[in-house]
Amino acid sequence: MRVLIALGGNAMTAPDGSARQEHQRAAITEAMEPVADVVAAGDQVVLTHGNGPQVGNLLVKNELSAAVVPPVSLDWCGAQTQGTIGLLILNALDAALARRDRPARVAALVSRTLVAADDPHFAAPTKPIGRYLPEPEARVMVEHGQTWQDRGERGWRRVVASPEPIESLDAPAAAALLDAGYVVTCSGGGGIPVVRDPDGRLRGVEAVIDKDLTAAVLARQLGVDALVIATDVEAAVVGFGTPDARAIGAVTVDRLRALAADGNFAGGSMGPKVEAACRFAEAGGRAVITSLHHLGPALRGGAGTVVTY
Amino acid sequence: MRVLIALGGNAMTAPDGSARQEHQRAAITEAMEPVADVVAAGDQVVLTHGNGPQVGNLLVKNELSAAVVPPVSLDWCGAQTQGTIGLLILNALDAALARRDRPARVAALVSRTLVAADDPHFAAPTKPIGRYLPEPEARVMVEHGQTWQDRGERGWRRVVASPEPIESLDAPAAAALLDAGYVVTCSGGGGIPVVRDPDGRLRGVEAVIDKDLTAAVLARQLGVDALVIATDVEAAVVGFGTPDARAIGAVTVDRLRALAADGNFAGGSMGPKVEAACRFAEAGGRAVITSLHHLGPALRGGAGTVVTY
Repeated sequence: MRVLIALGGNAMTAPDGSARQEHQRAAITEAMEPVADVVAAGDQVVLTHGNGPQVGNLLVKNELSAAVVPPVSLDWCGAQTQGTIGLLILNALDAALARRDRPARVAALVSRTLVAADDPHFAAPTKPIGRYLPEPEARVMVEHGQTWQDRGERGWRRVVASPEPIESLDAPAAAALLDAGYVVTCSGGGGIPVVRDPDGRLRGVEAVIDKDLTAAVLARQLGVDALVIATDVEAAVVGFGTPDARAIGAVTVDRLRALAADGNFAGGSMGPKVEAACRFAEAGGRAVITSLHHLGPALRGGAGTVVTY
Repeated sequence: MRVLIALGGNAMTAPDGSARQEHQRAAITEAMEPVADVVAAGDQVVLTHGNGPQVGNLLVKNELSAAVVPPVSLDWCGAQTQGTIGLLILNALDAALARRDRPARVAALVSRTLVAADDPHFAAPTKPIGRYLPEPEARVMVEHGQTWQDRGERGWRRVVASPEPIESLDAPAAAALLDAGYVVTCSGGGGIPVVRDPDGRLRGVEAVIDKDLTAAVLARQLGVDALVIATDVEAAVVGFGTPDARAIGAVTVDRLRALAADGNFAGGSMGPKVEAACRFAEAGGRAVITSLHHLGPALRGGAGTVVTY
């Protein structure tokens, strides 16, 4: 079986959300244990991951050093996090596989996601990222070409485009590595966003891509049997926060979309995961929303929200 | 023929050494033209690259934001530059290959280089990196665990270990991609330095590795036919800066080492290139020191310093 596992923030940062270097290392070291169990069971594994808090730290550095070193664009921030998170995954997975007497065949790709230059999100960026700043500091960043919005009492906040992922441009390289027996990390942070200019050239752009939506695209391109969207709960929940809350187990795309339309899933958290799961299931695959702690049972159908067409 | 090309600073920054984002993009776009010619001629190509000015910029960001975001270690800086430089190479090479009617099969690996935990350079770091700072600012960084030295009038400067590269841990993944027809970027910036702890775990460390010495190691591991160390001159020169200066063409390791012992090559620039070339030639390979402009002729023996055993 070929499995794509999309790691969420809780697999990569401290419980309080801290993305300090040592906290990222500790979280990823822990996350690679259940992942290594899946590899040891004989499945082919592809990993992808988020990068929100990590990019947040890079943006702070951009701001505080703007007078000395020009800020780098969001595609570069994404590329930087693929390097650091890739490194942590490589080392942690190497150790976890060694303890299971598996040869260490791990690889991490710098990887790009194609988006449309005319994606409507570019004209009206809405995705808030990074920290709030007082107006004068925000205006310095505006002079560097960024879009910031006045959010009232808390200050100004940067908003960026979050375009639709079309294609993981480096999925073929990931497939070649999978075929050669590697556990591959690809499309981290949703992939580095690039557009294709009229002359055919690829160019990185100022955007962030939802990592779960990219995971659904990558899962299709790699023909995986199961897409696992790892989060901090065992399953998606209907009536979350009410006395009638109950976990969703096996579910069809139609049923899950109906539940989404009824407002069961929050826009910034479970919503995109449910949407990504539905897209992959519509394409004929099996999508699972669960926690890394339930990864093994979920892949055997014994835990998690399992979405099929 | 399988060729490893090590790109130097001039292939990646502006002529004045600027590593601004747009200058890096322009330099790499230009550098990928002769590289694409080699690929189009039917050779298998592996790329590696330096990252000195790029890490310099990241260190400035570390310093200026240290009060808000903890500085990240040098292994992380290296990983970050593998992401951004890898991105630039992927996009530029994609375009250059497309114009030559080659399918775009390019890949960039997050890649680590093993060094010895007891490498003597760790006990006595001597490699200066980053910018000079006034003493009070340098002391802030010392509090974060870094080593800085008083360099007199210009201020304080950070020194780090530059240990010997032992093994490119991700060379097998690069080999798998080469076998699948990819042009692969690997071990950028000399590779992310890691040590193996007594319990077997790999761990990133505060160090920088000479990119040409790592290139020689990677060249051996990948069994390349030719290692090209690309620099800004057509060939290494004897009597540089004197009326008797003359370019070195075909040369044996013994002869080149004798010239090095006579002090013909500067420690910080041509010296490590000559040493890396000698190491690879001693291992039975052919090493070429030349400029990207002379890449094609040099591979056919018609230009550059060509070192054999």
